[in-house]
Amino acid sequence: MLFHVRMDVNIPGDLPQAEAAEIIARERAYSQELQMSGKWRHIWRIVGQYANYSVFDVKDNAELHEILSGLPLFKFMEIEVTPLVRHPSSVREDDS
Amino acid sequence: MLFHVRMDVNIPGDLPQAEAAEIIARERAYSQELQMSGKWRHIWRIVGQYANYSVFDVKDNAELHEILSGLPLFKFMEIEVTPLVRHPSSVREDDS
Amino acid sequence: MLFHVRMDVNIPGDLPQAEAAEIIARERAYSQELQMSGKWRHIWRIVGQYANYSVFDVKDNAELHEILSGLPLFKFMEIEVTPLVRHPSSVREDDS
Amino acid sequence: MLFHVRMDVNIPGDLPQAEAAEIIARERAYSQELQMSGKWRHIWRIVGQYANYSVFDVKDNAELHEILSGLPLFKFMEIEVTPLVRHPSSVREDDS
Amino acid sequence: MLFHVRMDVNIPGDLPQAEAAEIIARERAYSQELQMSGKWRHIWRIVGQYANYSVFDVKDNAELHEILSGLPLFKFMEIEVTPLVRHPSSVREDDS
Amino acid sequence: MLFHVRMDVNIPGDLPQAEAAEIIARERAYSQELQMSGKWRHIWRIVGQYANYSVFDVKDNAELHEILSGLPLFKFMEIEVTPLVRHPSSVREDDS
Amino acid sequence: MLFHVRMDVNIPGDLPQAEAAEIIARERAYSQELQMSGKWRHIWRIVGQYANYSVFDVKDNAELHEILSGLPLFKFMEIEVTPLVRHPSSVREDDS
Amino acid sequence: MLFHVRMDVNIPGDLPQAEAAEIIARERAYSQELQMSGKWRHIWRIVGQYANYSVFDVKDNAELHEILSGLPLFKFMEIEVTPLVRHPSSVREDDS
Amino acid sequence: MLFHVRMDVNIPGDLPQAEAAEIIARERAYSQELQMSGKWRHIWRIVGQYANYSVFDVKDNAELHEILSGLPLFKFMEIEVTPLVRHPSSVREDDS
Amino acid sequence: MLFHVRMDVNIPGDLPQAEAAEIIARERAYSQELQMSGKWRHIWRIVGQYANYSVFDVKDNAELHEILSGLPLFKFMEIEVTPLVRHPSSVREDDS
Repeated sequence: MLFHVRMDVNIPGDLPQAEAAEIIARERAYSQELQMSGKWRHIWRIVGQYANYSVFDVKDNAELHEILSGLPLFKFMEIEVTPLVRHPSSVREDDS
Repeated sequence: MLFHVRMDVNIPGDLPQAEAAEIIARERAYSQELQMSGKWRHIWRIVGQYANYSVFDVKDNAELHEILSGLPLFKFMEIEVTPLVRHPSSVREDDS
Repeated sequence: MLFHVRMDVNIPGDLPQAEAAEIIARERAYSQELQMSGKWRHIWRIVGQYANYSVFDVKDNAELHEILSGLPLFKFMEIEVTPLVRHPSSVREDDS
Repeated sequence: MLFHVRMDVNIPGDLPQAEAAEIIARERAYSQELQMSGKWRHIWRIVGQYANYSVFDVKDNAELHEILSGLPLFKFMEIEVTPLVRHPSSVREDDS
Repeated sequence: MLFHVRMDVNIPGDLPQAEAAEIIARERAYSQELQMSGKWRHIWRIVGQYANYSVFDVKDNAELHEILSGLPLFKFMEIEVTPLVRHPSSVREDDS
Repeated sequence: MLFHVRMDVNIPGDLPQAEAAEIIARERAYSQELQMSGKWRHIWRIVGQYANYSVFDVKDNAELHEILSGLPLFKFMEIEVTPLVRHPSSVREDDS
Repeated sequence: MLFHVRMDVNIPGDLPQAEAAEIIARERAYSQELQMSGKWRHIWRIVGQYANYSVFDVKDNAELHEILSGLPLFKFMEIEVTPLVRHPSSVREDDS
Repeated sequence: MLFHVRMDVNIPGDLPQAEAAEIIARERAYSQELQMSGKWRHIWRIVGQYANYSVFDVKDNAELHEILSGLPLFKFMEIEVTPLVRHPSSVREDDS
Repeated sequence: MLFHVRMDVNIPGDLPQAEAAEIIARERAYSQELQMSGKWRHIWRIVGQYANYSVFDVKDNAELHEILSGLPLFKFMEIEVTPLVRHPSSVREDDS
Repeated sequence: MLFHVRMDVNIPGDLPQAEAAEIIARERAYSQELQMSGKWRHIWRIVGQYANYSVFDVKDNAELHEILSGLPLFKFMEIEVTPLVRHPSSVREDDS
């Protein structure tokens, strides 16, 4: 089941740089593990912004919330979730 | 080169139904041909709305504008374009 | 799986009254059948507006979209969907 | 009498963690007591956000304001209240 | 129980003038009867706009919705309702 | 002459509590004196918010600005002023 | 007493041209008479828009509303009113 | 050449009071000198807000930017500029 | 003197096609003559929209308003004007 | 390939002045080098604001993102990117 997610990151200026770097490293590892598993199907950087558009493929809302609220950067993010379905004009059988 | 596109369709109530049906059929064929060619890489329906999120893979802005302004439903759409790049945390080599 | 849905209805002034009445009657029957089945778990009128807040319990996004796009009033509605999960402070075992 | 309430929580980054934890624990107890009493009829987490949609069943506006302004997290919240009534298409006798 | 209500009126240009005049006359009578009864406690015109701020004193949400949805101009209005309570700094015993 | 005023209060988290309490006490006294004089005709709390809707009856704009900018909480408020007149459908002779 | 007013004009496309011209001529005469009297102190066109910023000098809210609601173009306008006072840094004794 | 300018002032709470007072005094002198010269043609306080509407009469955009960016309070302001021209219905020969 | 202008075109669906085509042809000629003269320095299409960003080089506000209000498509456009100046980091002597 | 970019700069008040000056100097050098190379085709200051409108000419989205995210002021900016194409009414062969 697919969800479109926009994440805007806003790291406060007074966060110690080492701490920020450590969180960002954990974020990266966390994201990559989920990409590998197929649950975080796409992630694209929005040009000129510290933000991304992502597509998640999860089994239900609860799994999506668990993933998003577990993001190491979660408390520095604004997140907007939109449920998706296969488009009737899609040429593919599935929702890819 | 990738672009994120949101399209909201709003067909006026006084458009004759046959005409609307014909335009929608052409839209579908137009979209599917572009999906086949790989230029319209993804299209997803937004749940509960006559709208979609799409991702286009084109060689430049001009090609994208030509595709979008050629949509049979173009004059009944609001379109919003956002340029994308590969995300630094992506596990893939390319921007897929 | 729960979704919070807001629906705003806007019936155009030039729709013949008989036609409007017929659509509204079908809408009511459609809604009540889904309420009976448990899929349309709640529906509340917003005071002073031709609008409602609803909660749907469906098996996935596709089922929700099928229900919403099948609403007899669909083309006269603005619909906004928000995915929900059980709140960690809820006193209930399930998401009710 | 029903009210739809949206609460967005924003705990400032410089609040000592122990203090935050203590407030959150009190919030939880406060909410659960009101859920038990039937006044806080529903509470759902919004996916991907530190926010909830709730439905309150109170005897009047004054009771609702007393409950909301007494929330331990009140000063860190944005709250939006919408009065509800039973929907004319509801299959139930009451407003549940 | 008090509610603050903003009403913006927008009568379509193609409504026959006689019909508009008749609806406006009914609106006036309807409003004045409710003012007399004490339920429509205040009504003020917003300078430069076809709009008003009103304060209603009703026994519950259902009564307010019945009043508002019964306005002869209801289908030409945008209505926004805000629940009120006595202010703690008020010099009066009641909510007037 | 009447004005509708909305005030939203936002006291910064780092204001020493004693100082905040002292300002709030002065605000209360200031408001009550103006209510007594008839210039601050109404004040209502907005349910769930640290905000109020008020109605002022002053002799001109200058008097209103003097009152508002003299509020002890002025620098922590967002204030929005709307001029009012007697509504043509009012049942009263004056603007009350 | 001064008020800042923004007026945006939107004449519907299906208004017969002769009728539009007649209304615009009356609007002009109406505005000029009020300018002559000193009540409509300033009127400036906003570059690139069918809109103006104006400053009115009236004795009270009621007079302003009477003037604005009497504008021949009133029903085709959006009007926004902001009360003004002499600025404390003004070099003039009065509010000019 | 005329420009309509709205300035909203927001002095941060942690600015030492003496420093704030000194900046405000310089702002006042700066503004009055420009008013005397005729370049800052009007300045009015917006009722209830730390904000003003002003009208500038300058020889070109560059002069306006130089004036505005030289305001002692510039870094604490939000500024919005709208170009004006003489209104065709103005009773005056010039743009006053 | 430079101005940044955004124009959004919205031709009503019920405008006869021949009339629309004639207006668009005049718009094109009008624009090209101004481009030739150097007053309409740049015009770019916004990808996916019936809209453009333009830069005008005119001698004053009055000339700009005359140009914009003379656009054959003026009554079908929303126009937003922003005054520009040479940027202090520009590598050029002039504002190009 | 052209992109329209708006940049709004917001340097926090607590950044040491020397550090701010150093970043601004680097920003200037960075911008000028890109202007020289032809990639940063235009930069204009918005009158009255610490903001600019720019036009970039880059070979693809990736190059634009690399340039923008490399701006010394990047973390203090809000950036909004809009893809452009040659306008069909342009009098020039290319997109200048």
